[in-house]
Amino acid sequence: MNNLDKKPDIDLVRDFHSVWHPCTQMQDHETVPPLLIERGEGVYLYDRDGKKYLDVISSWWVNLFGHNHPRLNEALKRQLEKVAHVMFAGITHQPAIDLASNLVELSPHNLQKVFFSDNGSTAVEVAVKMSLQYWQQTGHAEKTRFAYLKGGYHGETLGALSLCGLDLFRKNFENVLMQNLEVQGPDCFRCPYGLQPESCNAECFEPMEKTLAEHKDTLAGVIVEPLVQGAAGMKMYPPRYLKKLEVACKLHNVHTLYDEIAVGFGRTGSLFVCGEHKLNPTFLCLSKGITSGYLPLAATLTTDEIYSAFYGDFSTLKLFIHSHSYSANPLACAVANETLAMLTENNFLKTLQPKIKALGEYGKRLEQLEWCGEFRQTGMIAAAELVQNRETKEPFPFEARVGYRIFLEGLKRGVFMRPLGNVIYFIPPLVISVEEIKMMMDVAVDCIKAVVEEKN
Amino acid sequence: MNNLDKKPDIDLVRDFHSVWHPCTQMQDHETVPPLLIERGEGVYLYDRDGKKYLDVISSWWVNLFGHNHPRLNEALKRQLEKVAHVMFAGITHQPAIDLASNLVELSPHNLQKVFFSDNGSTAVEVAVKMSLQYWQQTGHAEKTRFAYLKGGYHGETLGALSLCGLDLFRKNFENVLMQNLEVQGPDCFRCPYGLQPESCNAECFEPMEKTLAEHKDTLAGVIVEPLVQGAAGMKMYPPRYLKKLEVACKLHNVHTLYDEIAVGFGRTGSLFVCGEHKLNPTFLCLSKGITSGYLPLAATLTTDEIYSAFYGDFSTLKLFIHSHSYSANPLACAVANETLAMLTENNFLKTLQPKIKALGEYGKRLEQLEWCGEFRQTGMIAAAELVQNRETKEPFPFEARVGYRIFLEGLKRGVFMRPLGNVIYFIPPLVISVEEIKMMMDVAVDCIKAVVEEKN
Repeated sequence: MNNLDKKPDIDLVRDFHSVWHPCTQMQDHETVPPLLIERGEGVYLYDRDGKKYLDVISSWWVNLFGHNHPRLNEALKRQLEKVAHVMFAGITHQPAIDLASNLVELSPHNLQKVFFSDNGSTAVEVAVKMSLQYWQQTGHAEKTRFAYLKGGYHGETLGALSLCGLDLFRKNFENVLMQNLEVQGPDCFRCPYGLQPESCNAECFEPMEKTLAEHKDTLAGVIVEPLVQGAAGMKMYPPRYLKKLEVACKLHNVHTLYDEIAVGFGRTGSLFVCGEHKLNPTFLCLSKGITSGYLPLAATLTTDEIYSAFYGDFSTLKLFIHSHSYSANPLACAVANETLAMLTENNFLKTLQPKIKALGEYGKRLEQLEWCGEFRQTGMIAAAELVQNRETKEPFPFEARVGYRIFLEGLKRGVFMRPLGNVIYFIPPLVISVEEIKMMMDVAVDCIKAVVEEKN
Repeated sequence: MNNLDKKPDIDLVRDFHSVWHPCTQMQDHETVPPLLIERGEGVYLYDRDGKKYLDVISSWWVNLFGHNHPRLNEALKRQLEKVAHVMFAGITHQPAIDLASNLVELSPHNLQKVFFSDNGSTAVEVAVKMSLQYWQQTGHAEKTRFAYLKGGYHGETLGALSLCGLDLFRKNFENVLMQNLEVQGPDCFRCPYGLQPESCNAECFEPMEKTLAEHKDTLAGVIVEPLVQGAAGMKMYPPRYLKKLEVACKLHNVHTLYDEIAVGFGRTGSLFVCGEHKLNPTFLCLSKGITSGYLPLAATLTTDEIYSAFYGDFSTLKLFIHSHSYSANPLACAVANETLAMLTENNFLKTLQPKIKALGEYGKRLEQLEWCGEFRQTGMIAAAELVQNRETKEPFPFEARVGYRIFLEGLKRGVFMRPLGNVIYFIPPLVISVEEIKMMMDVAVDCIKAVVEEKN
């Protein structure tokens, strides 16, 4: 018997009565209640009946080392015995000092200062506000806009949402958003230049080049999700786009804001995309994997040049006024330090190579399905974009809810996937085994077949 | 020897190298490094040398039951053994279900649904976005603005900052903020009507009444910090203002957004201001004390009427699209449930009464200082607004940094206060003793004298 067929638990009734879940049409829970997860262990989540589910998407892309990891638990408990939290103005503490030092050491050399907040949205809001205030305090008050890529996602507080290139997220709030500039970016699956990612020269940088040249006087910065646009459906593009961006932004005196909230901390096979490709963004926004999926925490890294523009006598009021009560929460920082230790010791990132290879190899089965428009992969992130017609790349209609139905099939088979529209994606905890990768891919194939062959 | 005179710890040097602290002119740390806090116990914080500091402002208004509380630690560890975190779309868990049910039960009867996020700013952003989308989906798409009070503070992400009535926080970002309406609200210390809070009839509601009448067609909602405007300097006003607001908002079909992030969970002597005064806001934003100062967590409560406007077939796309990866973090929810248990059992709130009385009585010594323009108190929150001249109420000049110098005097005496400009305030953990209240007030008097008598 599976979760979909049985009488709901009384707690699920209470959930339905009082909880409003994020990004959920709550009416769906009339027929399919949420999973009532009781505990986690490694890459598996267990519901109240003891049924286990492979956590294919790392609980919203956050978990790196699996659930209930002894070292992370221990790090948290060690800090708990000292102090759970203290304020972070006028006070500092060892876990935050260590974490800031670690992040500075492990990120590109130009990034020297770390500002802590609570989640990805706030990490982006902090970068945006620092950029705006920097330009004001250096004689460029007219630089008040940002450019962002079509399909880009950077969070959902209104400032972050103003940088979002996805209509579904923006449409209800358009008239209160900042007036930023959306730019057509890479779209490798449907490349308008007819090129292949492996051989192109990022010809698609053209619109951004034009935007920068035309609007450089009013542009404060450009924000990107490097290599993988997550919420857009794990759309992937090559690093040379980023290299062109860096050169153009320097030329036009515009900041680069890297949102590595989803791709940082090993997802692409390296610690940070910017580090791997020798890129030097002005701001680097981090969250999600920073605590290996344990606790909310975020960091915005920036340069000494930015920092210096805020530094001076108090009376100048140049300071950066932004705070969250739980900034640099010591418990979260302690877990983050343990996470970084685990990511960097014993060649951990090298141990991902066979898994990355397996993800590609087993992914071939997906690629061969007649409804698979593209199978794509960047390190430990993989995705299959389903289409009605492989030749024309015509997508399944929104109303068919192909992704949602595949999600339900996955639950029956003990796999928790959560497609983005017609894109089935895989961003498992880094500690997943090669065998589990095979199982995950096999189940995905079965689920897709079950749904698409049944009827669209 | 105190923290100000000795050679800095190597970790303080590392802090200065890599950490950018919130709401801090980092240059100040050249001469006065932050306290390096090692552990906490009850109402005290201990630095690396073992020197203790009374946490007068509850680590940014978050701590209720003191640091390192055995019951809260235990609740956290119990949940840690199950699972630290799971995603909150398609999944639910006992700690979140319990917390949502508890919050619905303990808040005014009209509030029936709970949406979780990570901090006060996001709790407000969620309310703002729900309000906007509600009006769109019920045929009032022209309702796109909010009214807020002068002196109001609701967070610093750009959406929340757009509701902020404090120039210091807004000034660098004015040209990217939402076009909302600032309204002159209560200012009891400098009442323009020349009335006393005890006997007035909230005559100062007049500007809000006018704003509502004039702009009702474009107003989505009005946001307030009920009874105490925290960041404005713990400015306090009587509940009848809120009663007038409720009547007027109902009349003009405008939502009321209550930001009880700072005042909720016992600070005013009751669990929630709205509950105590039988007020029924459309939205109630909570954070800070929700986990008794342990972990970042926030909740936005709303009515079934709001919820229903988002409920329907998926194809209508009426759902509320907003998410944070760590929404409803199980560890934070578990601590929050324990916090609520402690707040509601054994008549805990009644035990505050002698403390509230003591705060008022010992506060009289402050009130008698010739530089005290006003001593004010709401429950467990008290504040003294210092002035140069008691008759004219002329404030000390900003450049004199009277508050900051008092803060430094406090550190010498083992008390961590952090004034807001010229306002010395007290918002201690609820478990502070009467004796500690006396000590805290005595030290405050000494610090004020030391600074003001020395030279302004």
